[in-house]
Amino acid sequence: MSSWVPGAAGSGYDVDHLPFGVFSVGDDNPRVGVRIGGYVLDLAPLGSLQLIDGAQVFRARTLNPFLAAGPVAWRETRDWLTSLLSVPGHRDAVEPFLLPLHDVRLVLPIVVGDYVDFYCSEHHASNVGAILRPDGTWLPEAWRHLPIGYHGRSGTVVVSGSDVRRPCGQRRGDERPEFGPTQRLDLEAEVGFVVGVPSGRGDRVPTNAFGDHVFGVTLLNDWSARDIQAWEYVPLGPFAGKSFGTSIAAWITPLDALAQARTRLPGQYPAPPAYLGVEEPAGYDIGLEVWVNDTLVATPPYASTYWSPAQMLAHLTANGASLRAGDLFASGTVSGPRADERGSLLELSWGGTQPITLGDGTQRTFLEDGDVVTLTATAPGALGGSIRLAEVIGQVQPALPPT
Amino acid sequence: MSSWVPGAAGSGYDVDHLPFGVFSVGDDNPRVGVRIGGYVLDLAPLGSLQLIDGAQVFRARTLNPFLAAGPVAWRETRDWLTSLLSVPGHRDAVEPFLLPLHDVRLVLPIVVGDYVDFYCSEHHASNVGAILRPDGTWLPEAWRHLPIGYHGRSGTVVVSGSDVRRPCGQRRGDERPEFGPTQRLDLEAEVGFVVGVPSGRGDRVPTNAFGDHVFGVTLLNDWSARDIQAWEYVPLGPFAGKSFGTSIAAWITPLDALAQARTRLPGQYPAPPAYLGVEEPAGYDIGLEVWVNDTLVATPPYASTYWSPAQMLAHLTANGASLRAGDLFASGTVSGPRADERGSLLELSWGGTQPITLGDGTQRTFLEDGDVVTLTATAPGALGGSIRLAEVIGQVQPALPPT
Repeated sequence: MSSWVPGAAGSGYDVDHLPFGVFSVGDDNPRVGVRIGGYVLDLAPLGSLQLIDGAQVFRARTLNPFLAAGPVAWRETRDWLTSLLSVPGHRDAVEPFLLPLHDVRLVLPIVVGDYVDFYCSEHHASNVGAILRPDGTWLPEAWRHLPIGYHGRSGTVVVSGSDVRRPCGQRRGDERPEFGPTQRLDLEAEVGFVVGVPSGRGDRVPTNAFGDHVFGVTLLNDWSARDIQAWEYVPLGPFAGKSFGTSIAAWITPLDALAQARTRLPGQYPAPPAYLGVEEPAGYDIGLEVWVNDTLVATPPYASTYWSPAQMLAHLTANGASLRAGDLFASGTVSGPRADERGSLLELSWGGTQPITLGDGTQRTFLEDGDVVTLTATAPGALGGSIRLAEVIGQVQPALPPT
Repeated sequence: MSSWVPGAAGSGYDVDHLPFGVFSVGDDNPRVGVRIGGYVLDLAPLGSLQLIDGAQVFRARTLNPFLAAGPVAWRETRDWLTSLLSVPGHRDAVEPFLLPLHDVRLVLPIVVGDYVDFYCSEHHASNVGAILRPDGTWLPEAWRHLPIGYHGRSGTVVVSGSDVRRPCGQRRGDERPEFGPTQRLDLEAEVGFVVGVPSGRGDRVPTNAFGDHVFGVTLLNDWSARDIQAWEYVPLGPFAGKSFGTSIAAWITPLDALAQARTRLPGQYPAPPAYLGVEEPAGYDIGLEVWVNDTLVATPPYASTYWSPAQMLAHLTANGASLRAGDLFASGTVSGPRADERGSLLELSWGGTQPITLGDGTQRTFLEDGDVVTLTATAPGALGGSIRLAEVIGQVQPALPPT
């Protein structure tokens, strides 16, 4: 049953979605809201009025307390909201707490604990290998045995809409290394997962406990400076080529909204070790779109990704590393098998050798100042149509002078 | 002038040191204290009583608010404490707030924002290169041009005294990868730096602004599982081989206590690029000791380290990455030129090929269950003797069953 909220039906934000975010109304009093159609439902006053158990978590300035409340609370809240927003008899009680989206300011919805980025797309990893090591082995030796990942900078995760300044950094030069604005600023289209329920130090989170800990999903743009990254990454991995900024959506989509999107993995050979064994369907059918300015430049299918999120989390915790509410881990660049399904400009321009042409006739190998990058995605919803994962948008600002 | 506190003179914790920590007295009410001799000075009630400006930061459960207060507040506090603890006339007013160390519980003193680990010791990097790539190039290509670093897991930074459970993980096997308890559990003796004053996204912190942002220093043990690390680290760097735990001291030594320890760097060739240029003396004469059980196994001299902390911070922020109060960055393993100055068992046992012998006659290549690792250090103090950086201690617990 669709929502009675005007415009919600068919918008991708009907009651089969109900993503959570944090908003303020110009009063610097951020609080938790849920999106329905073109509106934000103000949960704190509504929850208090209806004497909802635990409603104080909606008065928080971040989603973290709600995330930490766990799956039972998440589902009770979702059931409550579904009833309120779909049963017409609730309309009079609920309508006063609906705020048009254009009247609110959306802020970073979570305090990010640790941010881990994986490298889960075989097509992406193979493309990168082919571009950087054309005569060598495309996939790293361990790639099919474990989801390779690394820690990114949690303090520079920003909300959709935040500008990204072109970073300066060191890169290989003709005679000696050079320092200056990156000449290869890239996007990476990714799917991020937000941890709700903590785990203890020394504990493991097996693949079948994924839903006990992970609340939901956000699109993520892992901005990358390829020339800085290429010069620095041996042997400790990416650092300054990535740490200047990572954008996530303002709305976190609950895993429960993706029940219809679950799909089988493409297949894992050799079979993963026991601690990475996973019950199918372990993948998610999320279709991404990558836009540069007004041009759709790629449609990466997350369903083509080799390693599943439950396997990422099991690997991340197999050594006893603990989890906190607000931890964020991401898929790495999502790329599909087709040339127009590649989730980075590095791949789309094949290492900068094959420029792509935008709708205005201009060409790109990497991003130019002023470019606006937008990630969107859809997934099958429970009402027969699609839900729309919230967009991640960011504009490239010119670099500061190098000195 | 030494402190009037009994036992403080000559202890390494006289008024020329005054490190900050967070303690509780069995009442689950953690608050800020400063160490003097064998005592903790309870700053919150003392500060309130004396109407110290900003004394509420001492009632916090972490040092973060005090760290964020900045250099002027740090110095005013240090001057106030120096006077209280060295002028005998203050003794009656202060003594009621001195608690014996053995009566308090010390907790993690900071909420760690981002944790970055560098690779700044040329002797360490060369040793690792020689062990792992005996026929290749020992130093990575970029090593002399920038301080190589990566992000570690901030959520598993623990306070001295916390046990460390032997992690399980995937490693190279004879026919296929194996999963099980690490067989090469190692220590890494490091010097960590604690950020106080935040910086904005897009800003840079030049080397000469180091003291405007960094509050102080802690010893750090970056526990490492070498077999897990060796299998996973291409191309994104260390992950599960490190993320299970990192130990820091319970006391943070202010930079101001290390003024006498400043010393020239060993020399940098080629000269670093302009953004990494640094005014000498940029190094610190901190002499580390590494103990395994009751045996002193190494004495790494931090003064032998190639890259200085001001250069680490300048590099970390050169791309506009922002800083938060509580950010932690570390030197990487400190190793000196001599064989008995190596700060990891990987180096001390030369890749596990040359066991070291402990005082009880047993041998070690890597750590065994039950082993206790202790890091200590001294540095020149302002009273003519030495200050003692607070110890970092941890015992290895047996692994959980792999499944």
